[in-house]
Amino acid sequence: MGTIGNNSHEGDHHGVNFTAQRGFYTKLKSGLKETFFPDDPFRQIKEEENRSRRIIKGVQYYVPIFEWLPNYTLRLFISDFISGLTITSLAIPQGISYAKLANLPPIVGLYSSFVPPLVYAIFGSSRHMAVGTLAAASLLIGQTISTVASPETDPTLYLHLIFTTTFVTGVFQACLGIFRLGILVDFFSHSTITGFMGGTAFILIAQQLKGFFGMKHFSTKTNLVEVAKSIITNRHEIRWETTVLGLVFLAFLQFTRHVRNKRPKLFWVSAIAPMTVVIVGSIFVYLVHGQKHGIPIVGHLDRGLNPWSIQYFNFDSKYLPAVMQAALITGVLSLAEGIAIGRSFSVTDNTPHDGNKEMVAFGLMNLFGSFTSCYLTSGPFSKTAVNYNAGGKTAMTNVVQAVLMALTLQFLAPLFGFTPLVALSAIITSAMLGLVNYTEVIYLYKVDKFDFVICMAAFLGVAFLGMDYGLMISVGLGVIRALLYVARPATCKLGKLNEFGIYRDVEQYPASTFPGLIIVQLGSPVYFSNSVYVKERVMRYIKSQQRSNEDVVEQVILDMSGVTSIDTTAIEGLLELNKMLEKNGIEMFLVNPRLEVMEKLIISKFVDKLGKESFYLTLDDAVKASQYSLKKNDNGDIVHETSHA
Amino acid sequence: MGTIGNNSHEGDHHGVNFTAQRGFYTKLKSGLKETFFPDDPFRQIKEEENRSRRIIKGVQYYVPIFEWLPNYTLRLFISDFISGLTITSLAIPQGISYAKLANLPPIVGLYSSFVPPLVYAIFGSSRHMAVGTLAAASLLIGQTISTVASPETDPTLYLHLIFTTTFVTGVFQACLGIFRLGILVDFFSHSTITGFMGGTAFILIAQQLKGFFGMKHFSTKTNLVEVAKSIITNRHEIRWETTVLGLVFLAFLQFTRHVRNKRPKLFWVSAIAPMTVVIVGSIFVYLVHGQKHGIPIVGHLDRGLNPWSIQYFNFDSKYLPAVMQAALITGVLSLAEGIAIGRSFSVTDNTPHDGNKEMVAFGLMNLFGSFTSCYLTSGPFSKTAVNYNAGGKTAMTNVVQAVLMALTLQFLAPLFGFTPLVALSAIITSAMLGLVNYTEVIYLYKVDKFDFVICMAAFLGVAFLGMDYGLMISVGLGVIRALLYVARPATCKLGKLNEFGIYRDVEQYPASTFPGLIIVQLGSPVYFSNSVYVKERVMRYIKSQQRSNEDVVEQVILDMSGVTSIDTTAIEGLLELNKMLEKNGIEMFLVNPRLEVMEKLIISKFVDKLGKESFYLTLDDAVKASQYSLKKNDNGDIVHETSHA
Repeated sequence: MGTIGNNSHEGDHHGVNFTAQRGFYTKLKSGLKETFFPDDPFRQIKEEENRSRRIIKGVQYYVPIFEWLPNYTLRLFISDFISGLTITSLAIPQGISYAKLANLPPIVGLYSSFVPPLVYAIFGSSRHMAVGTLAAASLLIGQTISTVASPETDPTLYLHLIFTTTFVTGVFQACLGIFRLGILVDFFSHSTITGFMGGTAFILIAQQLKGFFGMKHFSTKTNLVEVAKSIITNRHEIRWETTVLGLVFLAFLQFTRHVRNKRPKLFWVSAIAPMTVVIVGSIFVYLVHGQKHGIPIVGHLDRGLNPWSIQYFNFDSKYLPAVMQAALITGVLSLAEGIAIGRSFSVTDNTPHDGNKEMVAFGLMNLFGSFTSCYLTSGPFSKTAVNYNAGGKTAMTNVVQAVLMALTLQFLAPLFGFTPLVALSAIITSAMLGLVNYTEVIYLYKVDKFDFVICMAAFLGVAFLGMDYGLMISVGLGVIRALLYVARPATCKLGKLNEFGIYRDVEQYPASTFPGLIIVQLGSPVYFSNSVYVKERVMRYIKSQQRSNEDVVEQVILDMSGVTSIDTTAIEGLLELNKMLEKNGIEMFLVNPRLEVMEKLIISKFVDKLGKESFYLTLDDAVKASQYSLKKNDNGDIVHETSHA
Repeated sequence: MGTIGNNSHEGDHHGVNFTAQRGFYTKLKSGLKETFFPDDPFRQIKEEENRSRRIIKGVQYYVPIFEWLPNYTLRLFISDFISGLTITSLAIPQGISYAKLANLPPIVGLYSSFVPPLVYAIFGSSRHMAVGTLAAASLLIGQTISTVASPETDPTLYLHLIFTTTFVTGVFQACLGIFRLGILVDFFSHSTITGFMGGTAFILIAQQLKGFFGMKHFSTKTNLVEVAKSIITNRHEIRWETTVLGLVFLAFLQFTRHVRNKRPKLFWVSAIAPMTVVIVGSIFVYLVHGQKHGIPIVGHLDRGLNPWSIQYFNFDSKYLPAVMQAALITGVLSLAEGIAIGRSFSVTDNTPHDGNKEMVAFGLMNLFGSFTSCYLTSGPFSKTAVNYNAGGKTAMTNVVQAVLMALTLQFLAPLFGFTPLVALSAIITSAMLGLVNYTEVIYLYKVDKFDFVICMAAFLGVAFLGMDYGLMISVGLGVIRALLYVARPATCKLGKLNEFGIYRDVEQYPASTFPGLIIVQLGSPVYFSNSVYVKERVMRYIKSQQRSNEDVVEQVILDMSGVTSIDTTAIEGLLELNKMLEKNGIEMFLVNPRLEVMEKLIISKFVDKLGKESFYLTLDDAVKASQYSLKKNDNGDIVHETSHA
């Protein structure tokens, strides 16, 4: 059927383009670009013809502050100032609380809201990000470093290792950005983050029972069983005064949260609630001499700005594995959270956001942070949401936050020493309750069972095995899902919708099939991991059609329209399939191979082996040609030359 | 445009089927079937209505010997006997040589060609497989176990650990087959195996210099530098007599190989050549008192069949990690080789082959082998090829091989003790030279650079880092390739080929685009790992069209025909994309979502959010509707309600 011989006129070969061959470097360039520069970051710079303006654009690209600062107005500043004030009121209690989670001196939490926000304001691409410490990362970094240095018996070493970890995280994050490896962060799916957040909330709330009961001794393990044991063993330490105070605080915080949910305009009520709790709590404890009633407080806080910490870095090989582990995991985790939240607000507001620039900015802020007694910072969800709702318009809100924090450190720090610990527990618990997203989990269950499993793996893993394991298992399942996809790309059998004259999946539409012919749409990609599967799948379609219709299949059409990539193992596989079909007296035709696939089929001589006449541009052409040749056989005009099995 | 409201009549929504919803169990069943049972193995059994025949078919399915033995004829036996004789003549020298590679007593190599072939003959599904030991796996198993037990100072422990490893391998392989995890073997691509074979050949040949030089002391490391050092240090041990003898043997073996390549009918010349070398070598050494001239021989071999070894299994936790490592890596490796070779001959001959059954058969033969003093066996490439060429028709060849080997063990074993070691070195070297596949590497380089890298990684990794590392790096690169595919599925911009009335990639065909409209064909799958990429890619198409054509894009059509799978993160991503487009005054339409994708879009309420009128069955419908609505705007009849950025 079709034409015979090597006539090179295109029309003879059903309109298929056999000439398209890009050079190796064109392909490599395009591949690298799609992989690492999908957002085409340098286009504006390259397009600028004026040399000096090109330099300006380049600087603006790398240092976004030069992009927005020249057009900055007083009006913008007023918005940013109010927003900055709001996030600072959140930053102080959160800073102290999360530093406690990481077993760090509370003042380090305050330091961490001074230098990093300044750095982010210069290099960050997002307009809405509010920089601060993260609850989950604080707990994780603390747990990992605790395995090599005890925060109780050797707090200095512990502190120095935390700074070192922050430094490594900074270098790692900046490198990810510079080498454009944002692709790594892409592997943290929404489902993983939802589950991880839920699991973290769960263990953090369990840990807060220590604060609520005012206990002195408590399990450092996050495991539920250990926590319960610990409470029972030390039950004589429970102070009801503390518990009552804590529940009052928690009720107040939850109430303000409820107000915000009902009336979004009153978001500031919940934003300043933690600060209110801290202030009211401090005054109350001071007035009633709370410490005598067993209500522990934060304790002495020194006045003064961040001291240098660069001289404390410790790269001793004894501690390095733990430092690296903590740095890499918390580094990727905090990037995933920070980038996801920045992106979601940029979409809502149509403001700029560049994942790779964000990584560099986060890296630099942790780098400079590690020099100045700060630990890991990122863009936490809650703080950024408050910043957005408070009307912050540019990264200037972070400058405001930094300045206000500097003033606090210089003049007010000692006052916060009176904060009762139970107030911090209430603040953490309330924040964590907001992170448990039931509706999302139900949604995942309904829409995609695999996503649900990924989410639950993160949740259960974090809650019962440990935060790092939970995260790794969940990301691992995501990777397995991606690999399973590549191992078993979905194929389907096509039929014709006569009403529209088009070909569709027979399972999805009432499409009619043809006697003696099977049309299979291959899934993408056709790779080493599925070349055997594809063969078996096609053979199965043939066998099942022969069985059910008592029909002798004589031709198979493979619709390649959806196949965007192929490799050498798969090309061998297609040749083997052709061989198997030939042995069974079946002809094989290929319809519409895509550019990249066609290139490889040509170079590998596959096209020559199969014959150009076996390629068609459209399904309709292939089907018509096939029906024509089959009819001829039925009439006995031409006898099919192959034998039937 | 389109109809407004919730009119549920299908025709109103452009013929798209919004009803197709399979239940959860239907989807799960179909997913599991495609993943683990793509070959639909039980169909024939299920379809048989007669109960007793169903049992027979079931037994035949699990124990393939019952399938072919009832129809076995004398004529088949004659073919099988000749073929069995040929492979036995190969099995003896190979068995002894490869056992030496694994630092095992040579007799263990002979034992391994007795029990395992018998087991395979019962359970194996391939008709052409010839069972035997593998050079690469022998070296690898030896190297790994050497790290915990020295074959020189503690040969008994070493031997027992090898049996234990074989046992674990057998259990592991059988489990892979029973749980239908052949999908794991799918990840060993052709390129990995090519590179691994080449690398192994390289280091094995370097190791054979010991035999060629007749040296007593030699590096146990496979590293080239170590080998060179070792030769220089011990150069006084070099015996020219051995070297000359070895080169003569090698030249002879290579010559017979050349004869076979030129005249395939003379394949038997090269098949019996190793046996010839062994016999001639033994006689020569016996006659000239070779041992006095520094030509070492194999040494004493005991008469008798395989002794039991089940009592020697050693699961001491000190050795277990090495045992497990060796068992898993060599287990998967030998499956990959055995299954690939079986499959390729079954395709050539259109005979049955079932990957999962093969795994069970390989597992059982290693299991029974480990009870009877055998070590790891599989279906080696060379032996199986000889079997095929010698005209073997069924697994009976393995029975013949086993019986002849039993006779050899019982009566002739001591004679083979006179084999000069240099003969074995020549046999290994010659076999290894045949494994280096230059043409394949050049082919990979031309067709697919990534496959070339995967192949070279295996080659260089094996040659310079170690066999296990080389294998893992290469398989790892394959996995990365699969993940990269899922992270960056190829999208393209479509245009219309007016001549044919169809839509094709504008890069591949001279297709014309439409003003104010962009048609993007999405690659498959749309997953968490690429949801950000897809957004950025679509925005880039829009920006580039707006720049180059000075055209205001008002509509985007996403062709979903090729997208076979989607997850919740990606659905969120599409919603975000729609939001971004809306902000820029651009409408988004979806064309032809596939069954699985449509199901999720419906359950996730995506369809409701976007509106059914935004879905089209064909590109042509969508384009026509779009052009109609754009024209109306141009004429000022209807003003576009969204603003332009």
